[in-house]
Amino acid sequence: MPRHHNRANHQIRPVRITRRYTKYADGAVLIECGDTKVVCTASVSEKVPPFLKGLGQGWLTAEYGMLPCSTGERMQREATKGKQSGRTMEIQRLIGRALRSIVNLEELGERTIQIDCDVIQADGGTRTASITGAFVALYDAVDSLLSQKIIKHNPIRDHVAAISVGIHQGLPLVDLDYTEDSSCDTDMNVVMTGNLGLVEVQGTAEGVAFSREELEIMLDLAQQGIQDLVAIQKAALAAG
Amino acid sequence: MPRHHNRANHQIRPVRITRRYTKYADGAVLIECGDTKVVCTASVSEKVPPFLKGLGQGWLTAEYGMLPCSTGERMQREATKGKQSGRTMEIQRLIGRALRSIVNLEELGERTIQIDCDVIQADGGTRTASITGAFVALYDAVDSLLSQKIIKHNPIRDHVAAISVGIHQGLPLVDLDYTEDSSCDTDMNVVMTGNLGLVEVQGTAEGVAFSREELEIMLDLAQQGIQDLVAIQKAALAAG
Amino acid sequence: MPRHHNRANHQIRPVRITRRYTKYADGAVLIECGDTKVVCTASVSEKVPPFLKGLGQGWLTAEYGMLPCSTGERMQREATKGKQSGRTMEIQRLIGRALRSIVNLEELGERTIQIDCDVIQADGGTRTASITGAFVALYDAVDSLLSQKIIKHNPIRDHVAAISVGIHQGLPLVDLDYTEDSSCDTDMNVVMTGNLGLVEVQGTAEGVAFSREELEIMLDLAQQGIQDLVAIQKAALAAG
Amino acid sequence: MPRHHNRANHQIRPVRITRRYTKYADGAVLIECGDTKVVCTASVSEKVPPFLKGLGQGWLTAEYGMLPCSTGERMQREATKGKQSGRTMEIQRLIGRALRSIVNLEELGERTIQIDCDVIQADGGTRTASITGAFVALYDAVDSLLSQKIIKHNPIRDHVAAISVGIHQGLPLVDLDYTEDSSCDTDMNVVMTGNLGLVEVQGTAEGVAFSREELEIMLDLAQQGIQDLVAIQKAALAAG
Amino acid sequence: MPRHHNRANHQIRPVRITRRYTKYADGAVLIECGDTKVVCTASVSEKVPPFLKGLGQGWLTAEYGMLPCSTGERMQREATKGKQSGRTMEIQRLIGRALRSIVNLEELGERTIQIDCDVIQADGGTRTASITGAFVALYDAVDSLLSQKIIKHNPIRDHVAAISVGIHQGLPLVDLDYTEDSSCDTDMNVVMTGNLGLVEVQGTAEGVAFSREELEIMLDLAQQGIQDLVAIQKAALAAG
Amino acid sequence: MPRHHNRANHQIRPVRITRRYTKYADGAVLIECGDTKVVCTASVSEKVPPFLKGLGQGWLTAEYGMLPCSTGERMQREATKGKQSGRTMEIQRLIGRALRSIVNLEELGERTIQIDCDVIQADGGTRTASITGAFVALYDAVDSLLSQKIIKHNPIRDHVAAISVGIHQGLPLVDLDYTEDSSCDTDMNVVMTGNLGLVEVQGTAEGVAFSREELEIMLDLAQQGIQDLVAIQKAALAAG
Repeated sequence: MPRHHNRANHQIRPVRITRRYTKYADGAVLIECGDTKVVCTASVSEKVPPFLKGLGQGWLTAEYGMLPCSTGERMQREATKGKQSGRTMEIQRLIGRALRSIVNLEELGERTIQIDCDVIQADGGTRTASITGAFVALYDAVDSLLSQKIIKHNPIRDHVAAISVGIHQGLPLVDLDYTEDSSCDTDMNVVMTGNLGLVEVQGTAEGVAFSREELEIMLDLAQQGIQDLVAIQKAALAAG
Repeated sequence: MPRHHNRANHQIRPVRITRRYTKYADGAVLIECGDTKVVCTASVSEKVPPFLKGLGQGWLTAEYGMLPCSTGERMQREATKGKQSGRTMEIQRLIGRALRSIVNLEELGERTIQIDCDVIQADGGTRTASITGAFVALYDAVDSLLSQKIIKHNPIRDHVAAISVGIHQGLPLVDLDYTEDSSCDTDMNVVMTGNLGLVEVQGTAEGVAFSREELEIMLDLAQQGIQDLVAIQKAALAAG
Repeated sequence: MPRHHNRANHQIRPVRITRRYTKYADGAVLIECGDTKVVCTASVSEKVPPFLKGLGQGWLTAEYGMLPCSTGERMQREATKGKQSGRTMEIQRLIGRALRSIVNLEELGERTIQIDCDVIQADGGTRTASITGAFVALYDAVDSLLSQKIIKHNPIRDHVAAISVGIHQGLPLVDLDYTEDSSCDTDMNVVMTGNLGLVEVQGTAEGVAFSREELEIMLDLAQQGIQDLVAIQKAALAAG
Repeated sequence: MPRHHNRANHQIRPVRITRRYTKYADGAVLIECGDTKVVCTASVSEKVPPFLKGLGQGWLTAEYGMLPCSTGERMQREATKGKQSGRTMEIQRLIGRALRSIVNLEELGERTIQIDCDVIQADGGTRTASITGAFVALYDAVDSLLSQKIIKHNPIRDHVAAISVGIHQGLPLVDLDYTEDSSCDTDMNVVMTGNLGLVEVQGTAEGVAFSREELEIMLDLAQQGIQDLVAIQKAALAAG
Repeated sequence: MPRHHNRANHQIRPVRITRRYTKYADGAVLIECGDTKVVCTASVSEKVPPFLKGLGQGWLTAEYGMLPCSTGERMQREATKGKQSGRTMEIQRLIGRALRSIVNLEELGERTIQIDCDVIQADGGTRTASITGAFVALYDAVDSLLSQKIIKHNPIRDHVAAISVGIHQGLPLVDLDYTEDSSCDTDMNVVMTGNLGLVEVQGTAEGVAFSREELEIMLDLAQQGIQDLVAIQKAALAAG
Repeated sequence: MPRHHNRANHQIRPVRITRRYTKYADGAVLIECGDTKVVCTASVSEKVPPFLKGLGQGWLTAEYGMLPCSTGERMQREATKGKQSGRTMEIQRLIGRALRSIVNLEELGERTIQIDCDVIQADGGTRTASITGAFVALYDAVDSLLSQKIIKHNPIRDHVAAISVGIHQGLPLVDLDYTEDSSCDTDMNVVMTGNLGLVEVQGTAEGVAFSREELEIMLDLAQQGIQDLVAIQKAALAAG
């Protein structure tokens, strides 16, 4: 069975990054990975959480949400239910860790960067798209701090991007869309830096367990996908 | 002081309505009124709330939310706080009432139309933009029910649209942006049908009380604005 | 069909205002409008919310609740449900805005007046009775501040009162009781000052839209009703 | 130090029971014990909680609340806080147990009596006043079921009433007001039937432990107080 | 019908107290009363609640929980439900009051002792076992404060322990297990000091009311049981 | 720096598995991995969640909690806070997925196995200990279903166990205790079946990114550790 749009197994979906998507946040990006669309913003505030007060370092944290109609069947609004689901919390913790991994929090000074990733349309890979897009929003927010001379040195040490890989009917695939994701045997999300250091590896057997060999193949696919994504991030940032 | 973009006092902001903005909901509209941008969706489900079970009629209800970064200063995410604010509840109740006013719920049959209005960027008038945009999403959702022959007769009786008006430094203005709204003396939201029947009038004195004469002038302005909006709705629907 | 107790269409229900209804609050009023009974209290505290700290001005805020058995069919207790309904929030926001409209918050100094309106029995018009009664409680609380010389000048600029009006089977009626309210076509709540300035106009079409002419007639009725209510407030305050 | 109003140590405060205090509930009583005022209502509904479905017996449950301004210093509204305090839950559980102790739930049939006790003014002893007043509301609600022939036999087996007793500066006192209650060494709430059977005994040492002898003296005082209360309940019911 | 394990009616279940049960808390006790097993810990923190700030005295408070599988039928986890039940709150308030009754809070200085009682297995009497066990945990925590010379004088004035008693099929029994507890007519929890002063008496008629004579017999049984428990506490503390 | 107790880098901590630790749950295990102690229970109920009704298959789900005093500094009780933390939700989702991976849910029939993992003492590795211990509790619960002939075939397909690995100051270590875990550069949790199939791989760079080579070394260590754990599970089950 060919992939949608005749994509090759090692080929990521078309990615479009729109900077300055909204006018208020310090960084505001719309990232589109195929039909998955996420608004990623970065907002700077001049305070840190209580556990960091007076330590001279900054913080970065993330929140994630989905519009109720972003999915095939409408989801209940979390604000109405009165709590975030476990899945939501898991994802926003992942996004925060991924971005902190490439930020020098001492260089940031006593301020907090709040990342918000809000999914407008979900066709698989929303958490990885969030990380890839949030990096660009973070970059723009930090750039604004630098150009206003609020901070002196760039606290961003490297790019960071994320991609999903999986084993689907025996075949390793990169960047699963929703249909692929919901029927694959193994599902893995990989976060890597621009230098191809591993930041997060989260692999889950959906049906049967997977082998070390399959893990290797998936990591190879992920690495190639992330190289592609970092190139796209660079192009978007170069475009001004 | 001239209005932003040299708008005349009786002139609404440029409105852009994008239908089929997302691919899953039965109706999905992006409405842009100046810099205010709201995603409005309509989703049909084949059930009704308990208080209507077995009565043979349908229901329409609405929810409203704002992306945390849609405003000048980032707002706390309601899903994280664990509850919707009073303002949010007030707005979503208003949107629901406004749209129910032009729907024949008996013709809809025992099904519910869920409206979701999610603000991507807020520059004043998000509740009125929500109503105006949600009408188009509702229309598309109903159209889909009709073309699938799930219902026989169109339950939509008329257009409905909404606009804000206010008295700002003694001058009556239509369609206030955020700067105007936050410094005006009187603020009024008006919902009207295509036939110019009044559905909701919500006027509030912010500073000093307002007079019957001022009320009349504001209603005149609102009526003109709503006529403009209904024309824009019609054009969007005609465009296919 | 004649109104209950042969009331004329422009005639408000008998109103009874009992001051010092409870012994602890700074102002404590029982207002009875026909069979609607609301306890309205005003409590002064020597602090302001965070957003006003250090600005030298005061604040006034309101909360509203209903005893579970105040209505025909027992309502669920909001403290048990764990949240206030949208209707409750909407009403308490309205009460707060209405009373703030006639208070000079600078004259009040850095203190907060908390209004509580608790409905003992609900026969229509609880939100308007709350505003009319809370004004008297507010007056008594402010009087106590003045007589204790905690403040020098009276921050109350004018009376404020509220009434409902509606179109019921084609007839405009003032001060709807529950039976009238639940079957009327248009329902409007009007808040006015003693000088007959408009503070809030909230009109809602329940069934069909209403016309500008109907709006005018309802506003005339409301104005007369509020004049009657202000006279009753004055008599109650004069009675000592 | 003499008691307020020169009350003797064994003397309860003046009690006033107003039946049919509100017009909607099946039983609706205002009980005033000195300055403590509680609205007690009993509402019948034709269903039982899930754990009793199909067992052919009824249920009785109680809820308790205080108006925010019922106390000397305003309390936060539990509906706003989003939860009932431990004290509130403890009290409503006590009220429910006390009233169930004198009701034959089989005779009630598959229906629930919901008791609501809402404190208008609190000057000590609100939980005991609630029980004493709720009995009369329950009686009226049951009477209505009997006169409508919804049930055949009276499920109420006996009166039930409650009183507080305490040791205050070495002296045993009955029916403590707020000032006495907040400074006493031992505080005990006693619930008894009309036949003087014990239903609940809840004694708490506030400062130092109490002796068996003190317990005996307090129980004697409580028994006398409850005899007085039952006589007042009977007089109120006889008054029609 | 003989009691389980041929226990005599006045005989408490075998009690085992394990000190230093976990390694982190300042005091950590496993108490086993028959098949009821509770982990009781005492943790010292160098702060007091807001209402005590600057008063130079300490505080002691308690929380209680049950593992979901501690009971015959699995209970819903309170952390998942999002709130503690009324029963839980009632019990933790009781534990706190019981322990505060024997602590001189002035001697403790401005610090808080937090008691946690977590039920591993519940076979009746979990609240009384919690109090008896928590006393030993409290003792160990205070001992640690004394040996570190953080406080100079022992704020513990006496032992405190608790036991349940009941009337079961006409027979007075001490220390009810779950089977006895769920079928008894009267259920009473008694808290006493080492000097046999009464701290709490909470008696409840489950079916029919109980008499003063029955109360006396139950208190005699409780007193004997508590003497036994205090001896066991002393032996555990002496064992080092 | 040598490891605590002179453990070799590839050596797991001493593990003790106590079956039938409590008397009520269908499976009840205390697992101790060094100083980490977790009670793991499995409870069978004869129903499935709504999304599985009528599909003829079963379900397995897990919840996780920590006693407030299980950690070095007392944690706030989640039942008191009113919600589970993101970390808790993430862990209980992981436990559920891990155990479902080795259960044939069709063979289980329309029933649910509820796993509860409650941490008594936490010294690192509580989530992996939970999985390893819960497997044994699950085994016992399923064994009971088989011996009662409620199900015919064993739905458990394989063992499952979990271990943490990390890079600590450049050295790969297996089964990190709390001190090691809180200062390591990379932290990875691995879940594998008895046949050494991978079920979950969750690796996180705490400080700097990690390389593919480091990942390989960690997976080798994890595999050896899991082989040891499965042997211990087998010995515990064989011991009867």
